[in-house]
Amino acid sequence: MKKTAILTSLLLLGTTSLFSQTNQGVITLDEFRLPSKRDIIHIPNVNGFQVLKCDFHMHTVFTDGHVWPNVRVQEAWKEGLDAISITEHMEYQPHKDDVNTDHNRSHDLAVELAKENNLVLIKGTEVTRNTPPGHFNALFITDANKFIDVRDEDKDQESIDRVINDGAFVFWNHPGWKDKQIPGSYEWIPFVEKLYQEKKVHGIEVVNGLGFHSKALDWALDRNLTIIGNTDMHNLIAHSYDLNKEGVHRTMTLIMSKDRSAQGIREALNSGRTVAWSSKYLFGKEEHVKALFDACVALSPVFHKKTNNKGVVTNYYEIKNNSDLYFELVLKAGKGTKKIVLYPGSAQTLTAEANQPSLTYEVVSTYIRSDKHLNVDIRLN
Amino acid sequence: MKKTAILTSLLLLGTTSLFSQTNQGVITLDEFRLPSKRDIIHIPNVNGFQVLKCDFHMHTVFTDGHVWPNVRVQEAWKEGLDAISITEHMEYQPHKDDVNTDHNRSHDLAVELAKENNLVLIKGTEVTRNTPPGHFNALFITDANKFIDVRDEDKDQESIDRVINDGAFVFWNHPGWKDKQIPGSYEWIPFVEKLYQEKKVHGIEVVNGLGFHSKALDWALDRNLTIIGNTDMHNLIAHSYDLNKEGVHRTMTLIMSKDRSAQGIREALNSGRTVAWSSKYLFGKEEHVKALFDACVALSPVFHKKTNNKGVVTNYYEIKNNSDLYFELVLKAGKGTKKIVLYPGSAQTLTAEANQPSLTYEVVSTYIRSDKHLNVDIRLN
Amino acid sequence: MKKTAILTSLLLLGTTSLFSQTNQGVITLDEFRLPSKRDIIHIPNVNGFQVLKCDFHMHTVFTDGHVWPNVRVQEAWKEGLDAISITEHMEYQPHKDDVNTDHNRSHDLAVELAKENNLVLIKGTEVTRNTPPGHFNALFITDANKFIDVRDEDKDQESIDRVINDGAFVFWNHPGWKDKQIPGSYEWIPFVEKLYQEKKVHGIEVVNGLGFHSKALDWALDRNLTIIGNTDMHNLIAHSYDLNKEGVHRTMTLIMSKDRSAQGIREALNSGRTVAWSSKYLFGKEEHVKALFDACVALSPVFHKKTNNKGVVTNYYEIKNNSDLYFELVLKAGKGTKKIVLYPGSAQTLTAEANQPSLTYEVVSTYIRSDKHLNVDIRLN
Amino acid sequence: MKKTAILTSLLLLGTTSLFSQTNQGVITLDEFRLPSKRDIIHIPNVNGFQVLKCDFHMHTVFTDGHVWPNVRVQEAWKEGLDAISITEHMEYQPHKDDVNTDHNRSHDLAVELAKENNLVLIKGTEVTRNTPPGHFNALFITDANKFIDVRDEDKDQESIDRVINDGAFVFWNHPGWKDKQIPGSYEWIPFVEKLYQEKKVHGIEVVNGLGFHSKALDWALDRNLTIIGNTDMHNLIAHSYDLNKEGVHRTMTLIMSKDRSAQGIREALNSGRTVAWSSKYLFGKEEHVKALFDACVALSPVFHKKTNNKGVVTNYYEIKNNSDLYFELVLKAGKGTKKIVLYPGSAQTLTAEANQPSLTYEVVSTYIRSDKHLNVDIRLN
Repeated sequence: MKKTAILTSLLLLGTTSLFSQTNQGVITLDEFRLPSKRDIIHIPNVNGFQVLKCDFHMHTVFTDGHVWPNVRVQEAWKEGLDAISITEHMEYQPHKDDVNTDHNRSHDLAVELAKENNLVLIKGTEVTRNTPPGHFNALFITDANKFIDVRDEDKDQESIDRVINDGAFVFWNHPGWKDKQIPGSYEWIPFVEKLYQEKKVHGIEVVNGLGFHSKALDWALDRNLTIIGNTDMHNLIAHSYDLNKEGVHRTMTLIMSKDRSAQGIREALNSGRTVAWSSKYLFGKEEHVKALFDACVALSPVFHKKTNNKGVVTNYYEIKNNSDLYFELVLKAGKGTKKIVLYPGSAQTLTAEANQPSLTYEVVSTYIRSDKHLNVDIRLN
Repeated sequence: MKKTAILTSLLLLGTTSLFSQTNQGVITLDEFRLPSKRDIIHIPNVNGFQVLKCDFHMHTVFTDGHVWPNVRVQEAWKEGLDAISITEHMEYQPHKDDVNTDHNRSHDLAVELAKENNLVLIKGTEVTRNTPPGHFNALFITDANKFIDVRDEDKDQESIDRVINDGAFVFWNHPGWKDKQIPGSYEWIPFVEKLYQEKKVHGIEVVNGLGFHSKALDWALDRNLTIIGNTDMHNLIAHSYDLNKEGVHRTMTLIMSKDRSAQGIREALNSGRTVAWSSKYLFGKEEHVKALFDACVALSPVFHKKTNNKGVVTNYYEIKNNSDLYFELVLKAGKGTKKIVLYPGSAQTLTAEANQPSLTYEVVSTYIRSDKHLNVDIRLN
Repeated sequence: MKKTAILTSLLLLGTTSLFSQTNQGVITLDEFRLPSKRDIIHIPNVNGFQVLKCDFHMHTVFTDGHVWPNVRVQEAWKEGLDAISITEHMEYQPHKDDVNTDHNRSHDLAVELAKENNLVLIKGTEVTRNTPPGHFNALFITDANKFIDVRDEDKDQESIDRVINDGAFVFWNHPGWKDKQIPGSYEWIPFVEKLYQEKKVHGIEVVNGLGFHSKALDWALDRNLTIIGNTDMHNLIAHSYDLNKEGVHRTMTLIMSKDRSAQGIREALNSGRTVAWSSKYLFGKEEHVKALFDACVALSPVFHKKTNNKGVVTNYYEIKNNSDLYFELVLKAGKGTKKIVLYPGSAQTLTAEANQPSLTYEVVSTYIRSDKHLNVDIRLN
Repeated sequence: MKKTAILTSLLLLGTTSLFSQTNQGVITLDEFRLPSKRDIIHIPNVNGFQVLKCDFHMHTVFTDGHVWPNVRVQEAWKEGLDAISITEHMEYQPHKDDVNTDHNRSHDLAVELAKENNLVLIKGTEVTRNTPPGHFNALFITDANKFIDVRDEDKDQESIDRVINDGAFVFWNHPGWKDKQIPGSYEWIPFVEKLYQEKKVHGIEVVNGLGFHSKALDWALDRNLTIIGNTDMHNLIAHSYDLNKEGVHRTMTLIMSKDRSAQGIREALNSGRTVAWSSKYLFGKEEHVKALFDACVALSPVFHKKTNNKGVVTNYYEIKNNSDLYFELVLKAGKGTKKIVLYPGSAQTLTAEANQPSLTYEVVSTYIRSDKHLNVDIRLN
């Protein structure tokens, strides 16, 4: 009698048994299967804006990438991205003996999949000129085949004009990617200056994959260009980023957007409300990096007080990182914990001598200029 | 000139270099060091209550545990617990030849550390009687040494009376832990019935470590006793739970409390607002498990619609788990996704035939009775 | 003076700094990069044969796979495989509007890469007939385009004859993959019986991905057909197997081969010296599974003796698993440790009452028939 | 009929079901349990010597450690160590109000456990003098209580004499651990010089935990003292080392020993056949580090040749790391792969221009002096 009850209970529990039978005698060995899930990258809203996770630079087999377009959607879904753009090279098609050369094709193959996976898919292309001037990404284009006839080497200006006329948002890709022997490969060259003057370049890819183009950050800041970070993925994300380690993520652009839509993203890009996120680092304009920090990090009230033998009172606080970002803080002014590492989704104890209004920390995991970290005042209470 | 600028930038980036010099020539090899951080277990508030993570059963070297009391605080801090109780055996002291036999000592050694680490430390003890009746934990005691003189084998009743008189909250530990050969080891015995009638037992430890005492869940439900889950840790948490795997956590009691205080916890225990959490499973009264589910799981609006060749419209939703709990759902009524696994902090796509008010799922990772899972209606829109 | 010496030492240590400068001011954020390495799957030689790790079933964008052929080489190199075969569908080309339909193409694109990566690449194809009879893989073919004209539905026999005439090793893929509603989908059908009689089918894919076709194991054993396990990978290995968990590997065929060459593999396949390895399980003929076990598992001499209060002496041994395989043992005869789990590259303590010649264990992680595990005698000493 | 067969097979497979019933209705939720196993640290024999993994410096609750002695045995067993020594402070007992002050006690409590777990347990103590001269470990002592009466501050010399007279192997612990303000804290002081002249100090702890005392390495090399690396663990290994990351291990001394015994270890210590291993680094005398490298790393024959358009032939080799050590190589002479990282148990492709006898690499993950890495010639063939 009791035994029966127990067995019932066991069967009930048995729903997630290691082995389950499918069809007729085919037994699944599920234990080694990768769980299928969409990881949520947790970042609170910032000043009322949603923080969208976007990657605007990647390739497929249709130019020189190694995967079918569906894999780009699959990766983005799994990794919790909101928006991607597949940006095939206009001028470079090494697979052309084997693969369709229609320049819209990889985007088109991803459209329905992106819809089914709740991803914003933005039509884009990489204008792949010799260096200098190098490469530019054009987002929000309408038809990639419109630009085919300006692929010749002498048509750098025309190629940009054409995507601009198509209504694109244009950013300069990974300046500095070529050796310094090539003249102009990592300089603010006249060609780009002209584009800038004519408002034909709107942003700079300051981080490409795991490479930070430090001078490019300053160029963007000095000219109020939008700061972008992308993977430029050709291979698999899973073979490039060590995703099995806690906290590892692909490089991306964090967009502070009014809503989760292509329109929202365009408006935010136009307004420059972006922060590039790569490895443990954030790269952006001071106001945006600061707003992100303030949205993510919170200090508790004093939870404990301790007086030492000299009568000095130390206050104890908990400082929490309510996000999946990473912040590393070094004390600059005030008497308190010298160094604080705020890992994703975790807290630390912060101690401070009583009767101070605030402590000043340098957030050394942020860049608001190639040679400058964000400084924050932590208000004590 | 340029080179100088770059080097400055490198030095700036160099703040988290693998090697850093301390003192005079001692070089730290930090890469293999475990990061020191307090993991936040994310669970949203439930009906206005904070969800506190509590473990009310553990031991130290002062009875038969393997660690000094500070390790229990360290573990709890790292793992994001809110409250613990060190519950040494009253009647069992195998280390007595080597270690102080003051029954308050392990608690007392942890008091200041708990304060500094923002943990609620509740004074408790394990009343360790032969089986039957077995063991009982008494929480919120004032002085463990008060109970020494009732340790004799024939004083089961007195031992309980004594902790009750001290104001304790009392729960029966791990019924069923002894072999069935021992009479009464897994039965609702008269001794406990008497305690229950006299309101001297207030809860049952339904889960002890990774053992679920299934009959005990029903006893608790039928008598409105508070449902408890603890580690009963003697050894190290890190040698017992596979914490390096994503989502793995120690067994604990989730307390829906008015605030993060000992008083709040006592009130919630008295009111029975608890859910035990062990492995992937939740164990509790239907209303509490349901409230937890509702607080953690959210469905998006329809983000996509698809019509098949028979004219049937399928709606696409995103279902999100905004918590570090785990939910596994199996469809019971309606036409939609058959099985949904909501891993911690992740989302899945849910599809449903259009024009249905809701889908009914069985949440097979919950137990609201030894033979019953929670059923939930997912409202469609 | 001292300070200088220390700084020199620091610079020396600094060679693997988190950040390193490349080109001109591009700073690499290497910490999140996946290390590039070839994992060695450690399995000792078995009876003088090398144990080669092989996967003979996978697809690329050239039929219905999601990756360019180079990714299959990359995956195999990283995961420590010795040999692979890219086996595109002869009769099924869903990407034909976009991709070259030359049936040799994906193999040809991988040839040079395989050589550079020290992989044995075997030319193969999947003969993709309706079910029944279903699919067959043909390995060691010379020209996949030879078989194009027998793709019509009514040419099942001709399609097999053609690959046989080309010198192929032929195995029946994943019998049982279709629903039981389809007649003959999981039966030993006359078509296959005829092939078997005519020696035109040489093996059976008993494990496909993480699906074990249990009846197929018995068919192979009863007819002395070669036992095969493959991934049948269409997607990415990294999106299908949970490779970040210790011990997880893709499904493969372990080949006991005279050398690491295509010829060696062919000879071993012809001789049936194979074991399929999927999840924690090994599937094969008793003699091969036993030989693998004996090569991998070793018992130490007695390292400790303990006499209990009844005078019974217990001997202590260390039992080591010198391989990356997994073995789970349950005691069947003798007095000793009841259950032993030999994780990859690890050891356990085995205790046995003294004065026994051996203990008999069932190795429950092996299948030498659909309903039978390997039994081993562990000789004591 | 078929169904029955399938169910039998399922039950057979069901032996490792997620849930298993124990006793009477207690259901175990095993999925979150840490597997119990002894990891094998794989290092091949070196010149006929076994490479024993040893940690000669750790504490328990009996002085200022946080665990009972059994935990030290448990940790060592799990992590694959061969020998440990529990080295309580002679002069420092902060737990003395609560814990037995018998100085042999923690060792004695571990003796039987060590035997049962196949660990060599060496009796030791830490002679804990003020700095300077600081601390010394004495191994192979017979009775720790013999040294109690020389604990006074003015008996530095007597305390060393006493352990020497007891037959101890003595090494100087972590020189440089105190701030440089303290005179003599990181210098080769007269007191130690005298010990050295009188052969009363036999080794130096060059690595303590994750701190490398770089000057101490040179002192040891210049005076032919034995090089030691230990954890000096007070807390838990699992809270100090990030063991969940691949390749992470506690700091230890690798001993090249004639056999796996206390005697073998003593002989090897006396002969100085040791290498300290901490984080990714090896520290030792050139001959020993080189012998380790040669035993662990092997180059395959040429497996591929490639001729570029200038007629230059490149040979392809596989370079394997047959150990759990880590080696990082930077090319110093010859034309070949510039940088090679040999992760534990993995291989890399090495390419070299043909017709060279060898390539010279600096193994930058080794230290054969504070400012010098091992150089190795890789013979080509």
